[in-house]
Amino acid sequence: MWLQRNLTLPAMPRGCHLMTNEVLSGLPELADLQVGLLHLFIQHTSASLTINENADPDVRGDLERHLNVMVPENAPYYEHTLEGPDDMPAHIKSVLIGPSLTIPIRAGRLALGTWQGIYLCEHRDHGGTRRVVATLNYD
Amino acid sequence: MWLQRNLTLPAMPRGCHLMTNEVLSGLPELADLQVGLLHLFIQHTSASLTINENADPDVRGDLERHLNVMVPENAPYYEHTLEGPDDMPAHIKSVLIGPSLTIPIRAGRLALGTWQGIYLCEHRDHGGTRRVVATLNYD
Amino acid sequence: MWLQRNLTLPAMPRGCHLMTNEVLSGLPELADLQVGLLHLFIQHTSASLTINENADPDVRGDLERHLNVMVPENAPYYEHTLEGPDDMPAHIKSVLIGPSLTIPIRAGRLALGTWQGIYLCEHRDHGGTRRVVATLNYD
Repeated sequence: MWLQRNLTLPAMPRGCHLMTNEVLSGLPELADLQVGLLHLFIQHTSASLTINENADPDVRGDLERHLNVMVPENAPYYEHTLEGPDDMPAHIKSVLIGPSLTIPIRAGRLALGTWQGIYLCEHRDHGGTRRVVATLNYD
Repeated sequence: MWLQRNLTLPAMPRGCHLMTNEVLSGLPELADLQVGLLHLFIQHTSASLTINENADPDVRGDLERHLNVMVPENAPYYEHTLEGPDDMPAHIKSVLIGPSLTIPIRAGRLALGTWQGIYLCEHRDHGGTRRVVATLNYD
Repeated sequence: MWLQRNLTLPAMPRGCHLMTNEVLSGLPELADLQVGLLHLFIQHTSASLTINENADPDVRGDLERHLNVMVPENAPYYEHTLEGPDDMPAHIKSVLIGPSLTIPIRAGRLALGTWQGIYLCEHRDHGGTRRVVATLNYD
């Protein structure tokens, strides 16, 4: 059985943001599913999806600060510079973190660990809203 | 058709560890499946799953050493420091490597390449056992 | 419903390469599928698959140049050196980018964003052809 739906995530400032509730509120049918997989796919090349700690916001801040050191703006070897200094690092960060997530479904819920939440990582300074294709495949 | 099961991976020292046999021994039904996908999902935010070289243990050592240079402990911009110097790097490494794997199933086996094995990357100094949700989706 | 097929990607020079057309031409059945997922899995440990910008080739060049800075050859802590200076960095880059992609299918097409394309990242100097297992799971 399949259910596929577009979700729109709100425009967020550059950084990593907890989005578990926004995703779940767009998929009320989850409550009826016993076993399956949820696939989330962001249709952009300068934002990414991941899973990490859902409690202390410092984790998201440290992650963003580290990404900015590991993938700096204005590296001397960048040639793709016309879209602004935040653009090429955003592409690289998106490749490293990835555009999609697959999460198991069990007994009407995502089978996340206690401390896990879904992150939207916005790598542009002004990325705007972000489109995500959610695909539920279930028994 | 679906089969979902919790696997428990043994407590391992910090580093990258070959876990193909541990995963396969927890999924004996694989031998009967002709086509499908295995999804593995680690329910933690400071350990990760990946696939890489299954032969020379130096590859796993070099990977761990590189991760420790690329994502150092005690970076001056870390604010999430109360859980120890290994904690925030563990979260970042988990984001970069990722919490899940999807592997094709073919003719009763995982369709891995000759040199591929499943790695558990333990990013904490004392991470303990790790829970993995295995979901088999098959014809 | 399932369809699984081996694809062979052509030998490419070291770097990141747009492969959307090569993948699609190997999967003509996609045109008949209404909803599902395409899973691509590269059976190697020194090349990887990702999704990023499909327009300006400078993005692929900058990505490759950045990977070479972030994961250098000849790091003093590498012990796995017998297969050449490009080998151990190739393993690390493969872990960071990952061996597989899952992409939603909608109305006979991959539900990619306007600017998204499939990349083969070849991390070896002379990697040769690369095997990819494509698995279509659909309604």
